[in-house]
Amino acid sequence: MGNRMQVWALGGIPEVRAGDDLADLILRATDGGSELADGDILVVTSKIVSKAEGRAVRADDREDAITAETVRIVATRARAGGGFTRIVQNRLGIVGAAAGVDASNTEAGTVLLLPVDPDGSARALAERLREATDARVGVILSDTLGRPWRVGQTDIAIGAAGVHVFDDLQGRVDSAGRPLTVTHPCVADEIAAAGDLVKGKLSGCPVAVVRGLERFVGDLGLPGAASIVRSPEKDMFRLGADEAYRSGFEAGRAAVHAAREENADADSGI
Amino acid sequence: MGNRMQVWALGGIPEVRAGDDLADLILRATDGGSELADGDILVVTSKIVSKAEGRAVRADDREDAITAETVRIVATRARAGGGFTRIVQNRLGIVGAAAGVDASNTEAGTVLLLPVDPDGSARALAERLREATDARVGVILSDTLGRPWRVGQTDIAIGAAGVHVFDDLQGRVDSAGRPLTVTHPCVADEIAAAGDLVKGKLSGCPVAVVRGLERFVGDLGLPGAASIVRSPEKDMFRLGADEAYRSGFEAGRAAVHAAREENADADSGI
Repeated sequence: MGNRMQVWALGGIPEVRAGDDLADLILRATDGGSELADGDILVVTSKIVSKAEGRAVRADDREDAITAETVRIVATRARAGGGFTRIVQNRLGIVGAAAGVDASNTEAGTVLLLPVDPDGSARALAERLREATDARVGVILSDTLGRPWRVGQTDIAIGAAGVHVFDDLQGRVDSAGRPLTVTHPCVADEIAAAGDLVKGKLSGCPVAVVRGLERFVGDLGLPGAASIVRSPEKDMFRLGADEAYRSGFEAGRAAVHAAREENADADSGI
Repeated sequence: MGNRMQVWALGGIPEVRAGDDLADLILRATDGGSELADGDILVVTSKIVSKAEGRAVRADDREDAITAETVRIVATRARAGGGFTRIVQNRLGIVGAAAGVDASNTEAGTVLLLPVDPDGSARALAERLREATDARVGVILSDTLGRPWRVGQTDIAIGAAGVHVFDDLQGRVDSAGRPLTVTHPCVADEIAAAGDLVKGKLSGCPVAVVRGLERFVGDLGLPGAASIVRSPEKDMFRLGADEAYRSGFEAGRAAVHAAREENADADSGI
């Protein structure tokens, strides 16, 4: 018999407002925490963390909010309906559309920024839940993200605490005894994806519980979701194809001009 | 109470060999199919489909095999340990390292190519299982893939049958009545990811059953995983940053040279 996992959405989480205590809301939705067991992982839609942290800004500032959250523009494309799609790296290092600024399921007239420190928020929540329940639980904060090459979005982990975000197979061998050097599954993203399948976008259930993955649950000091971000220098897709092409085009022109000036200088005997 | 999902790995699937009947192996591992119920989705590691289809080639042909499976080179980077990492678009349209040519958990001295037609293989398998069990099941073939911007891999769907690969929210509205136009969750990829969490890479359990997502199960004629592939023309990351830069650089140089020749022609009165 192989592994078994159960995933369910918590009912009874009310609409979250600025200043709400999320640990308290989750404890109430789990019968004082008695629904939670050792090794459970909670997948919490980051949107409700943002709401609790009061990260709503006025909707007419949306473009300004995106700009403020942007560290680096990765790619831009004109939209058919007008405006631009901006793929940017935000201050958390995450590359995605609109820097995570969220305009759905928010209060009318507002958009939501991502939590200030998702790993920190996850840690604080996991700490509270562990204390209150005596169960060693992990917490993942999820967000919905598009990706290159594939249509549609999947949920990923933008914050994590008490969870091994990678299943480290380095040093392990396959059934033929060959080292699995390359394989480094990002289980935190897979857990976020599994959570989305029961939470959905419309159910009003922003928290899922995943049971059966206790092998991935650990100390609260484990590296968080920030460790999933690949640094741009190591990334073959650190820039959109059009942007990289234009940057190369300018450099190519400049190189010829520079060479010509050097030749001209040489000709004039300088 | 929110949605609930159960995911478990099937025990009792033996090492798969060329010519094996996968439907038969799955039926035997599920007590003649009685373990399967209406609305279940089977996540099958594509590796065992490749094995059953006899897609093993000699290991010393690995680089040739990658080249043969490649439709388009997207990015190349020298590896620290020697050799090159090739990110390519393979004949299925999927962009990834090594065109899906797999060197782990294969017979010694061989590498495995992806199934010839993963959507077709998924359909044939779903058809057989539906006939044998009277249960309306869906089938997803999974593979492990890296991604830009994020470290590590996740499992995705490279084949699908009898499953809505997207949760189509178009036309739906959020809790504030605003249309969810942009959100288009790729549930097939999320289901593949959930399956990986119980199958793992070392457990010898290449098939998972997902129960509780019957809302995504449908006709065998539904679009398969090929519909998840975004066409390069629509993709802002159709080329690696270095490749696009070099291509732009050459074009920039050529543009200056062309302009100079035109000027020279004009100067000489041609």
